[in-house]
Formats: sequence, C-alpha cells, structure tokens
Amino acid sequence: MVIPPGLLPEGLSDRLPPQAEASARLTRRVLDTVAAHGYERVMPPLAEFEDTLTQRLKSMRPQDLVRAVDPVSQRSLAFRPDMTAQVGRIAATRLAAAPRPLRLSYAGPVIRQKASQLRPEREKLQLGAELIGTDSTAAAVEIVNVAIEALQAAGVTGLTIDFTLPDLIDTLAAGPLPLDAREVEAVRTELDAKDAGALVALSPAAAAYLPLIEATGPFHAAMERLEAFDARIGGALASRIAGLRAIAKPIGWDITLTLDPTERHGFEFQNWFGFSIFAEGFIGEIGRGGSYAIARADGADEPAMGFSLYPDPLIDAGFGGESPRRIFLPLGSDAERAAALRAEGWHTVAALANGEDGAAQRCSHWLDGDEVRAY
Amino acid sequence: MVIPPGLLPEGLSDRLPPQAEASARLTRRVLDTVAAHGYERVMPPLAEFEDTLTQRLKSMRPQDLVRAVDPVSQRSLAFRPDMTAQVGRIAATRLAAAPRPLRLSYAGPVIRQKASQLRPEREKLQLGAELIGTDSTAAAVEIVNVAIEALQAAGVTGLTIDFTLPDLIDTLAAGPLPLDAREVEAVRTELDAKDAGALVALSPAAAAYLPLIEATGPFHAAMERLEAFDARIGGALASRIAGLRAIAKPIGWDITLTLDPTERHGFEFQNWFGFSIFAEGFIGEIGRGGSYAIARADGADEPAMGFSLYPDPLIDAGFGGESPRRIFLPLGSDAERAAALRAEGWHTVAALANGEDGAAQRCSHWLDGDEVRAY
Repeated sequence: MVIPPGLLPEGLSDRLPPQAEASARLTRRVLDTVAAHGYERVMPPLAEFEDTLTQRLKSMRPQDLVRAVDPVSQRSLAFRPDMTAQVGRIAATRLAAAPRPLRLSYAGPVIRQKASQLRPEREKLQLGAELIGTDSTAAAVEIVNVAIEALQAAGVTGLTIDFTLPDLIDTLAAGPLPLDAREVEAVRTELDAKDAGALVALSPAAAAYLPLIEATGPFHAAMERLEAFDARIGGALASRIAGLRAIAKPIGWDITLTLDPTERHGFEFQNWFGFSIFAEGFIGEIGRGGSYAIARADGADEPAMGFSLYPDPLIDAGFGGESPRRIFLPLGSDAERAAALRAEGWHTVAALANGEDGAAQRCSHWLDGDEVRAY
Repeated sequence: MVIPPGLLPEGLSDRLPPQAEASARLTRRVLDTVAAHGYERVMPPLAEFEDTLTQRLKSMRPQDLVRAVDPVSQRSLAFRPDMTAQVGRIAATRLAAAPRPLRLSYAGPVIRQKASQLRPEREKLQLGAELIGTDSTAAAVEIVNVAIEALQAAGVTGLTIDFTLPDLIDTLAAGPLPLDAREVEAVRTELDAKDAGALVALSPAAAAYLPLIEATGPFHAAMERLEAFDARIGGALASRIAGLRAIAKPIGWDITLTLDPTERHGFEFQNWFGFSIFAEGFIGEIGRGGSYAIARADGADEPAMGFSLYPDPLIDAGFGGESPRRIFLPLGSDAERAAALRAEGWHTVAALANGEDGAAQRCSHWLDGDEVRAY
C-alpha cells in the first residue's frame, strides 16, 4: 500500500496557522507568568532510558510508552509521555544540592503509544511548574494561584477548579473508619460510581463512608458537608480541611470552585491534595496538579507541589487565534519605513515580484509610498 | 546492570537554568522577527510514517532515523531528524491551495539515531523560516536578510555568512566545461579537498575547474576571481553571480561575507544558492539555508528558499544566560505590591515558611514592607 503523501499516523497531526501561533502564544504567556513567580525553566530531553524513566512514572504502563532501541547502548529508550517525572529526576539528581524550595517550569511535547478514549491525540503539549521541597498548604496556595494567574494571563476565561483529597480513603481507612485492603478497593469503586446503595450494601464499615458521596459539588456547600462528616469522626481531616479553606481563600470570584474529595483518576501519585482545571465550553480537564513525593537518590522522598496544563483542546477549539495586522509592501518600498512598521507591531509581507496581490496574502493594508492604506 | 538514576543516554541531555531560559529566549526572538516579516508558524508532529517522511528527507539515510512501530497501523514511525521536510509536506499537501509565496516558520526539537562527529547531541533544537513558491534572487535576499536580522535580534554578534553555489559543478559539467558522470564525482572530491595537484592530474577536462579553488575566501575578492573565471567560459554563471551580488548588497558591514562556491556538505538538496551561518567563537555552523525544490502532490516541483538555525552550540557556550532580577517576598508581603513588582519585570520569590533565605534563592533584593532593599 502506498501511503498518501499528506497522511499522518492516527493521533499525530500538524498545527497550521493561526492555531500554531495561538499555541505558541499561550505557552509563552503561561511561562512568562510562572517565571515572574520565580520558576526557572528546565528542558529535559525527548527520550530517556526506559528503566530510569518508568521508575518515576508511577501511573504509566510500559505499553503506554513509545519505545526505540538506543544504538549506542543497545538499551531501550522511551519517549516521555509526561514531563513531571523528568523534572522530578532533575530535582533529585543534578539539582539535588540546589536550595529548597526549588521552583522549576517546563514546556514541550509529550507522546504516548495510544490515545485515550477522550482525546485522539498521541502527541500533546504539556507545560507547567513544580515547587520542590515542600507540600505545605502555603505551597498549595502558591501553585493553585500561579496556575490560575497563568491561564488568565493567556486569556483563558470561565475557569473551574475542582479540589480533591487523593489519599482521603487511605487516611480514613488507616484511622477512624477502618477498612481492610479488599474493602478499600470496593469502597473506592463505589465512591467513584457515587453509588450510595452499593456502598451501604458492602459492609457496615463501608457504609460509614456514605457522607463523602454528598460532600461533592460547589465548594462551600460541599466543604460544610465534609466538615460535618469530619466532626462526627473526631476531626481526622482537620488539617486537610484547613488546607482546602486556605487554598480557596485568595481565589477570585470569577473562578468556579468545586469539591470532589474522593476523585482519584489522574491523581494516582498525588497525596494529600489534588486539583483539576476546567475551562468553560471544553470537555475534559485542561490541567491538573497537587502534592506528591519525589524519590531522591538516597532513597528518601522529597515533598513537592505542582501543576501541568494540556492546552491542546483549547487551541483545537479556536482559542487565541488572533490575526496579526499584516501590511503588504510593494516592490521598491522603503526598507526603513518597513522596519518602523514592524517596530509598531505590523507584520510586513514584502512583494518579491511584480503582480503580487497583498490582499490574497491576507494583508489588510498596503504601503503606498509613505502612506499606510487599507485594501 | 542498574542504570544510575540521573544517567541519560549519550547525546540526550537536560538543559538547566539559566541555559534553558536562554534557549527559549533566543527561540522567541528569532520567531518574533520572522513573524514580523510575515512568516506564519506551523507545528508538525514529532513523528510521521517512515515512508512519507523519508521521501522528503533527501540527505538522510534510514539508519539516521529513530524509529518505532506504530501500534495503530503496525507501520514504522520515524521521529523527525529535520523539520524542513515536514514544512515542505505541509506546503505540498494541506497548504497546497494557499496563495504563493507562502511564508512559514517553525521551531522544535529534532532527533537522530546517531550523533555527528562534530556535535555529540542526538536531540537538537531547529528553528527557521521557509519561503515557498519562488527561489528567485529576491527570495534569497529576503531569506538571508531575515536570518541575519533574527540572529541579531536574539543578540548574536560576530556573524559570518558563507555563500555557496550547490549545483555549480553540475551546471558547468552540463555546459561549458563538460565532464562525464565519473569525472563529476572525482572533480567534486578534489574541489572539496582543495587539492589543485590532484585536480589537474585527473584529466584536462577536470583541470579546467582549477580556478574554482581560488575563487574562495573573503566575498569580494573571491567574487572577482569567480567573475574572471566566468568571463573565460562564456558567462554561464552570469545569473548566479548577479544573484550573489544582489544578496550581498543589503548586508551590513558588521557581517563577514565569504564565498566557497564548491562547498556542498549540508547542501545536498539545495540547487542554485546556499549559505552557512557562523558566529564568532563557535566551531561549526549555527545555521544554513538556500534554494531548493518541494515535491508537490501532482509530482511537479515547487521552488522554495529557506533557512534553519541550530542554536544549541551557542547556548552550550553560555550565550544569552541573562539573570532576571529576583526579589524575595518575606511571609506576609502585600500581594498587590508583589504583583506591581512583577509588572515592572521583577521575578518574585515568595517565602512559604519562616526562616527561608532569599539570598540562597539567588535573590538580589528583598521586600521590606513597601521598600525594595538590596541584600
């Protein structure tokens, strides 16, 4: 079979103007915002040794990775399906001696072997920021607010932040509401399904988790239900509740806050705190973050907090597709006048031959001697 | 063997602060400059079907490619070792109907299976601009001057541009100085080696190419020798010589121009015009460009002109490693004052706990109430 010359593999695609420019502009504005908060850029490579990469990819299966054999070492290379594992490696190795908290940012393509059901893309853009050395409430406040500020600087509106407590069930099961390992999984499954009947039917111990199904939805009402639940079990969640309240406090009224304390999908490696970011009109999250631990070279864990954005769905939907002001320069236009127009923000399109049509080149204006004229 | 956790495969490496930021800044300034000249961004995927990619990779061997099997199609995927082939594919397929000349820009990582002798990196950053639909002298003037302007906007100084005529030997051998196919290769080899004795010893026909060895070096002197040679062979190179003169004319005196008319390495797919870009103090070229042809879907060729930059050697050598102004915000600092400092260009580093040391965080200043104080 001859492959048509323009055909690309499923899940791999070109971005054309103006979406490619919109993607670059969004990336730039997010990175500028996080840089202004002291996050410094790192650029890990596209691929690493599969063994060292997968050690740090806690929620990734080997079959999710695009792999190739390294001709130099004859070892298996894996292309990164995620950059946070790489940033963790950098923090744990080359920047192990850098003062903490360590603030790092990153942006670049990631690629996986198969697309998810929700999104057909196998390659996507990931960008984000990681705060390494602490997973305190103060760190969570900074990370959530920097993520919001970055998206707003990029022009994204209608944001919803959904908070979760990824290790909630483990915490309760090991403390005030004991469950055995088998029950933990069953309780998680029924809480995922928000199936009150099935949860109660599991066991009396499982039924004690019932109020968590109701502690879901708009943030303040859901928090009150979570607080009432916590009061009945002796305050085991007090520090987590105080943390969520502190994180929510500085968030502006233009952001919708929700709570889904038992949500765990995408939070397999977060611990006390996680959040998802949604934008009005887009299906699926555009970002997520939370607290986690980085394995240091000495085997100990280092606390960290971070967020990642996956803005491709926004760009696909036409977000940020601004048109620059394009002006056509007929043959013989003055070079200094053209440079002055560029300095004013015009994009100049110079004629290379007689008979070119600036309007066909999507120019709104043309330079007539020294005068800027509209078509 | 256990791989140390921080070890990366040969030729793949991390960029850390401040080099990662310097790389991003250089990319941004180059892309902003080419955008101001009407070049619009495209973003092709990291990998494509091997067959369709290699069709357009004229100077690449299959063993140079990093390959993986596509689980969806069971076909071989190849990671891009170069982005110009992908930009050519976009121009020839999805943008086949867009008005010409078509101006496109791009930036991103490229990866090859093995490093070159000169550079150990297997992954490198490529950025550039392609002007599709013409390979006229006017197009060459634009491309060379936009490349120079872009590098200067990024702060690169001490530029040398080396011009070449990639199809020179073919043109002469098919015209005034006939050679058979075997002689063409031998003449090329001796001209590459600049070995006058060996060239003359090949044959009387080959000896006629001797003056080209001397038509090399500083641009104006070398051009005079090339013109004298051309006068003796009936002016077969007149249009090329006029082209080179026109391209050189608007280039400022701060740029060193040289001519090496028989240079062909790296110009395997260029035709009448090629150029290499060097920066003072760096071994090896940092960019190259010239005229070439793009295979259209209908089988015909479309003329094009472009340049690519490979700025990693500059970044490796510390180019552009500016330090931002970092200011430490002690606990309780006013949020609005902090935002105002960021708007002024400060990078703020907020304390998350008591006892943090802003100076250890490489802050030059700290906020004392409302006052900015130096450490």
